[in-house]
Amino acid sequence: MHAALAPLAGLLGTFEGDGEGDYPTISPFRYRERVVFGHAGKPFVTYQQHTWQPDTDAPMHTEVGYLRVPGPAVDAPAGTTRVELVIAQPTGIVEVQEGTLEDGVLTLATTTVGRTATAKDVWSVRRTFALRDDLLVYDLWMAYAHVPDTHHLHAELRRTG
Amino acid sequence: MHAALAPLAGLLGTFEGDGEGDYPTISPFRYRERVVFGHAGKPFVTYQQHTWQPDTDAPMHTEVGYLRVPGPAVDAPAGTTRVELVIAQPTGIVEVQEGTLEDGVLTLATTTVGRTATAKDVWSVRRTFALRDDLLVYDLWMAYAHVPDTHHLHAELRRTG
Repeated sequence: MHAALAPLAGLLGTFEGDGEGDYPTISPFRYRERVVFGHAGKPFVTYQQHTWQPDTDAPMHTEVGYLRVPGPAVDAPAGTTRVELVIAQPTGIVEVQEGTLEDGVLTLATTTVGRTATAKDVWSVRRTFALRDDLLVYDLWMAYAHVPDTHHLHAELRRTG
Repeated sequence: MHAALAPLAGLLGTFEGDGEGDYPTISPFRYRERVVFGHAGKPFVTYQQHTWQPDTDAPMHTEVGYLRVPGPAVDAPAGTTRVELVIAQPTGIVEVQEGTLEDGVLTLATTTVGRTATAKDVWSVRRTFALRDDLLVYDLWMAYAHVPDTHHLHAELRRTG
């Protein structure tokens, strides 16, 4: 593992569990999810995720990307690691996220959301990932169309590998 | 395979071969590459790529993303398929590309380039992928810092799976 990834070492592996989604424009829904954080000896973590319907196993969402640790910010509080996340989604959306890792919690928000011409009008995303022992809890907030930053997803995943 | 992917069906599979890179700011270089286009029954193609040094097998670049076929444009010439491509790179860069598929040639250009705060100043990318039988040839042009749109990569890959 590349030395730069030491702050993210606990995240490497596979996590599976259940999630639930809600948003003002849709009906609440539930899903099963698998997230894999990997590395290949270089200074970034690979991120792959997919979800499926609990009853039918039908595929739902998937996304891929990379976590980066660009080194401590000059004015960062002790114990805080600066983190960058880039994501591509098959919905035609890309995210550039910036944030911090502190006490096992990744707190990230988009500085750029890119959309293909036919993608939905998502215009900001915030994500948190909280790792405590082998439990990974994440939340996602999204601003979409006329809806400002609003909680959309919550999942609790256990390490399976 | 989802019916929307019919125009891209020939692309599905694994391709490997050799590439070469050049740019005004660097020395020319060569690489080996593997590209995998896959699908999971949904209306997008998954794209995974990595390159490595021919001599040492050391990993070089990698990127991931999705190709989308959003349906024919109203005013598109016959035989032309509209295509969207989103990509995330571990260099902290994301791309939103739009373009066409015509006579086996994908021609794409960025409408958005997103960068983390520490990413290099790439500000536009064009890509072509030309598939003829089992030969996939791609080229990439990039605008970076003070260098306008300039050819950067060329590779010729053969289907291996």
